[in-house]
Amino acid sequence: MNSFGTLLRITTWGESHGKAIGVVVDGCPAGLELNEEDVQQELDKRAPGQSEVMSPRKEADKVEILSGVFEGKTTGMPISMTIYNKDADSSKYEKIKHLLRPGHADFTYQIKYKHRDYRGGGRSSARETAARVAAGAIAKKLLAKYEIKIIAYVKEIAGIKANKINYNEIYKNNVRCPDKTAAKKMEKVILKAKNEGDSVGGICEIVALNVPAGLGKPIYNKLESDLGSAILGINAVKGVEFGAGFGLANMKGSQSNDEFILKNNKIVTKTNNHGGILGGISTGMPIVMRAVVKPASSILKKQKTINYKTMKQETISVEGRHDPATIVRFPPIAEAMTAIVLADHMLMAGKINPDTLLK
Amino acid sequence: MNSFGTLLRITTWGESHGKAIGVVVDGCPAGLELNEEDVQQELDKRAPGQSEVMSPRKEADKVEILSGVFEGKTTGMPISMTIYNKDADSSKYEKIKHLLRPGHADFTYQIKYKHRDYRGGGRSSARETAARVAAGAIAKKLLAKYEIKIIAYVKEIAGIKANKINYNEIYKNNVRCPDKTAAKKMEKVILKAKNEGDSVGGICEIVALNVPAGLGKPIYNKLESDLGSAILGINAVKGVEFGAGFGLANMKGSQSNDEFILKNNKIVTKTNNHGGILGGISTGMPIVMRAVVKPASSILKKQKTINYKTMKQETISVEGRHDPATIVRFPPIAEAMTAIVLADHMLMAGKINPDTLLK
Amino acid sequence: MNSFGTLLRITTWGESHGKAIGVVVDGCPAGLELNEEDVQQELDKRAPGQSEVMSPRKEADKVEILSGVFEGKTTGMPISMTIYNKDADSSKYEKIKHLLRPGHADFTYQIKYKHRDYRGGGRSSARETAARVAAGAIAKKLLAKYEIKIIAYVKEIAGIKANKINYNEIYKNNVRCPDKTAAKKMEKVILKAKNEGDSVGGICEIVALNVPAGLGKPIYNKLESDLGSAILGINAVKGVEFGAGFGLANMKGSQSNDEFILKNNKIVTKTNNHGGILGGISTGMPIVMRAVVKPASSILKKQKTINYKTMKQETISVEGRHDPATIVRFPPIAEAMTAIVLADHMLMAGKINPDTLLK
Amino acid sequence: MNSFGTLLRITTWGESHGKAIGVVVDGCPAGLELNEEDVQQELDKRAPGQSEVMSPRKEADKVEILSGVFEGKTTGMPISMTIYNKDADSSKYEKIKHLLRPGHADFTYQIKYKHRDYRGGGRSSARETAARVAAGAIAKKLLAKYEIKIIAYVKEIAGIKANKINYNEIYKNNVRCPDKTAAKKMEKVILKAKNEGDSVGGICEIVALNVPAGLGKPIYNKLESDLGSAILGINAVKGVEFGAGFGLANMKGSQSNDEFILKNNKIVTKTNNHGGILGGISTGMPIVMRAVVKPASSILKKQKTINYKTMKQETISVEGRHDPATIVRFPPIAEAMTAIVLADHMLMAGKINPDTLLK
Repeated sequence: MNSFGTLLRITTWGESHGKAIGVVVDGCPAGLELNEEDVQQELDKRAPGQSEVMSPRKEADKVEILSGVFEGKTTGMPISMTIYNKDADSSKYEKIKHLLRPGHADFTYQIKYKHRDYRGGGRSSARETAARVAAGAIAKKLLAKYEIKIIAYVKEIAGIKANKINYNEIYKNNVRCPDKTAAKKMEKVILKAKNEGDSVGGICEIVALNVPAGLGKPIYNKLESDLGSAILGINAVKGVEFGAGFGLANMKGSQSNDEFILKNNKIVTKTNNHGGILGGISTGMPIVMRAVVKPASSILKKQKTINYKTMKQETISVEGRHDPATIVRFPPIAEAMTAIVLADHMLMAGKINPDTLLK
Repeated sequence: MNSFGTLLRITTWGESHGKAIGVVVDGCPAGLELNEEDVQQELDKRAPGQSEVMSPRKEADKVEILSGVFEGKTTGMPISMTIYNKDADSSKYEKIKHLLRPGHADFTYQIKYKHRDYRGGGRSSARETAARVAAGAIAKKLLAKYEIKIIAYVKEIAGIKANKINYNEIYKNNVRCPDKTAAKKMEKVILKAKNEGDSVGGICEIVALNVPAGLGKPIYNKLESDLGSAILGINAVKGVEFGAGFGLANMKGSQSNDEFILKNNKIVTKTNNHGGILGGISTGMPIVMRAVVKPASSILKKQKTINYKTMKQETISVEGRHDPATIVRFPPIAEAMTAIVLADHMLMAGKINPDTLLK
Repeated sequence: MNSFGTLLRITTWGESHGKAIGVVVDGCPAGLELNEEDVQQELDKRAPGQSEVMSPRKEADKVEILSGVFEGKTTGMPISMTIYNKDADSSKYEKIKHLLRPGHADFTYQIKYKHRDYRGGGRSSARETAARVAAGAIAKKLLAKYEIKIIAYVKEIAGIKANKINYNEIYKNNVRCPDKTAAKKMEKVILKAKNEGDSVGGICEIVALNVPAGLGKPIYNKLESDLGSAILGINAVKGVEFGAGFGLANMKGSQSNDEFILKNNKIVTKTNNHGGILGGISTGMPIVMRAVVKPASSILKKQKTINYKTMKQETISVEGRHDPATIVRFPPIAEAMTAIVLADHMLMAGKINPDTLLK
Repeated sequence: MNSFGTLLRITTWGESHGKAIGVVVDGCPAGLELNEEDVQQELDKRAPGQSEVMSPRKEADKVEILSGVFEGKTTGMPISMTIYNKDADSSKYEKIKHLLRPGHADFTYQIKYKHRDYRGGGRSSARETAARVAAGAIAKKLLAKYEIKIIAYVKEIAGIKANKINYNEIYKNNVRCPDKTAAKKMEKVILKAKNEGDSVGGICEIVALNVPAGLGKPIYNKLESDLGSAILGINAVKGVEFGAGFGLANMKGSQSNDEFILKNNKIVTKTNNHGGILGGISTGMPIVMRAVVKPASSILKKQKTINYKTMKQETISVEGRHDPATIVRFPPIAEAMTAIVLADHMLMAGKINPDTLLK
């Protein structure tokens, strides 16, 4: 379905080339200062057209808050936000509407629903994630009141890895990489792929700082489950891992176990292979997860496919204004979904009053 | 919370050394033939004490069905199953009850709940997964009516990989590996770790065959989200990936996109990098996912930790009858959770009548 | 929260004097013909200003569908509908913003949220129900495909009862009463109350025809629970009853039990004291329920109240353009919520394909 | 489905003549003192066989707590409780298994599930409510920590009304009526019906004291919706009303509006026509609701019905050990469900810490 969350619940709607997209954020307590600028700022981080490594599509992505805020503060009522679609060009899609774009959801939507808005991928387009970013902006602002900070960045693109993690660097380069040197190489490899009519994949790392110990619910709302579900729900994600992740397959218990130590008379762990979560519950250490984002499916390069009307084999070259590396637009979306999950768990753990922040 | 699922919903309960553990399965349609043997069979696959590479704990794990079945068939009513704990030995836990076992949930449960059943790890013990396996047995039986089959096996342990996939081999060796030769090496490496008072991690692969195209709901109940959430909710799992998974980070779109072809006049894909899921919805290709299982946290080897009563540093050696490689007991649990998710989605997609299988 | 339903789920948002109100309808299968006129028609039935017995507020209540419909048919994606607020006049509310209007939610919202949009009652205004009516229009259209028809009408106002039930009469009079003679008396009593600066209450009866036997889920999603919850969630409703309802308190089992008989070789009941529901599940007989709607709280007559800023006793006379008998605008809302519940249960019972209506 | 609640969630299971019935209570915070006696006490209030006006069935109804409690205190983990069925006598049901008992769920379960446990009504039996009472005992104990008290009693039977409300009287008579004189008359009318092989209906009033202002969520989790849904989900209930309830249909706004006044410098209302709830949110005044309970459907008196195997008209006389007035066993069940809803809302409003009561 199109809702996510328990006490903080978002419901998104809208198609890529429809009239608008939007989101309803339900469960934000009253008393949070909020205006459209707060949300716009996050949307701008996700917007296309910021550099050559992104889709040239020019989305103003101007958000409008229609409810739930009064005199500059949330009221506890659902916050409805709408972003009108301005720069949609559906002409490119008309001629390929019966061709199943490889790697896309055309086939599965067609077989499931028998009727779909094929323009720009319709609902399955990554455009929908703008609505999540808008919702996430509220969650982030709420978490900021409790000093919780979420940072996502590109860790790896086409085999090139970030070796340094400098948070200040992330938005200074075009690929949202915390390592300046790696960023340059990444940019180069993206442009090369773009020129070849191809695309590249990568890995995004998401870190949540100052998350208090005690968030998460056993057994089925473990933080890994809920965060994992949120991240795996983002377009193009095909894997997620926490802490040492898949590296744990080649470790011994004596290596992977993080020893408990005292630091300023507080119990912490010496290492963080557990990625800030034990037994599904936060330990107070930084939450660390990584997601793999597949190469963009829309490529100019010719591929074989089927025309489902004629049931004949054809060749497709997906024109349009596509991202050669969706991974570079991924970090703000990952931050948003992470923020939504953590804010929800802050509420569920009674660490944020679900009704109001005011006294 | 302790429930999982939408139309097929399981609720598990019970502590490792409490009186019993159990599960309520809600939403199974009427008319499914079911008896305790069907469930017992799956439980036996998960049971400890089957070989040297497992915990020697002898759990009879005898399941009792208390409701929802009448004259050998389900009635559509909730199916309650109980497994009494027989072989619990809590003595080993008494002396370490204030020591935070590294890698365990002791710390997080203590800080969150301030009162916990520390015996055998209480609710956070992997013993709880027996209840999931019991529930999964029902889901598997339901899916089998629709030819859907789920197979999980050990793909990798401590760096040793299965190179062949022979489903018939899986339960012929002690490590549930589909490759006989790899299995022997894996067994050896586990026993070595065991002798050193240590443990190993590994990777489990789960395959679902004959899943019809069209399962899964955009946007937040994508199959990846729901399967991912289910698998990440199993103890010790720290990562999950679908199809080509993390390998996608180093692929081009022209490589990772699976071309559509016709096979027996049916649309399929030539390759399966997408792991049977596009846009969150099943394509009809095999669903393929992998989960990483961390090395068992309970090890004899000495580790540093904190006594949270005295707030002093201490050394711990976790005695008891532990698994040196929980990964080898993981496949039936992974199958169970996968089956529960897929059965739920079969119901949600209207492919199984939610009320009754009878005419 | 602001969502309702399981497989068909609505999420409403918006304040009485905010920019707009709206609803997201999630879970409507693909392939339903739908346009704005279908929705507008239902909204017009609810609109104020249709006669002297209604609030003179002139709401254009022009609905806009922003997503989920493509080429005249639903796509299975969430349907977002927005209604802009045009005729809001907040001036009357400014001077009484610290006075707790008796019978209103001012006090409870204030104490719960500490910050509220007081203009026109904000979110607690019956204006929100327009969004429900919009959602209900879709549910009604979906149900109509299965011959299910929902009819609501005024059964009683201020002690005056409808003695005849002529469905064709309902929208021919100003009070939505199926009995022409009673309607005239009701209108008179409303106008009298209006002239006295007062308001009246009443009872609405809701009937659902052609509901197939077998809808409803034991134990906690009984039709009475879900319908009751839906109807009790509408502003001003303080009671709901099914079939013989509260009259059952004075009946014997031999009277209240509806005997089963055969009619055209189909099992039906001779009488319908059970209101179409037994054991929480529909019997195929008409579903019959009634809701009591309290007199509108906003009255010109002077009442005592408290100014919560000064904590002083004051006198209030609620000016503005109020309904003297909200009950006359209630039937379309009751129909909408009933339709949403029944459509949801049709989906949950597998009687409507949740993905698509198309072959 | 068989679960109810959001943060405090109960899942019940079991059939009347199956092996056992039970409930899993999920979401009770850690640190609540709890033992089997606390639960048994409530179950004993509901048990049959306490007097001539009840079914003579002798259910020991001995509850066993299987999880979630450690060293006398809850741990925050799910609390599983089982009650074994001891005195089930299914012989009476064998011969009428194809006859649809009027007023019962036989028909609807048969048509929905095509296979049902007909013995003693199976899952649709009021026996299931024992599981709710067990769950409610925990909710009541939790609420008692916050001084919230719930009292239910018989207000009316077969037209005889309680005129006095003396809480101390309720369990001193056989009909749970707070008015000693009325109780005697009620008892007489029940016995008369019993002798005639008939049964009677009645009304139960439920009062919740000391509920803090601010519980309940607009729009779809209004207290009326959630309480109404809970009460309407109890067997035989066909209506529910709050405060002045259906009486509001014949009141003017100037009468029904409860004026706000100051009492000990606290804002309260002078009257309580609103039944403690405004805008769906508690006001701090006593919550008052009433439910109508239909006459027991199982009566000795002959009734016409259908044999669904032969599709022939037959006559039925329902033998067995039935209640002539289920209403007298209703108050503890109503208290239980009310407690569960209010405890859930206390958690959702952040007024009870969802993790732990301990410091």
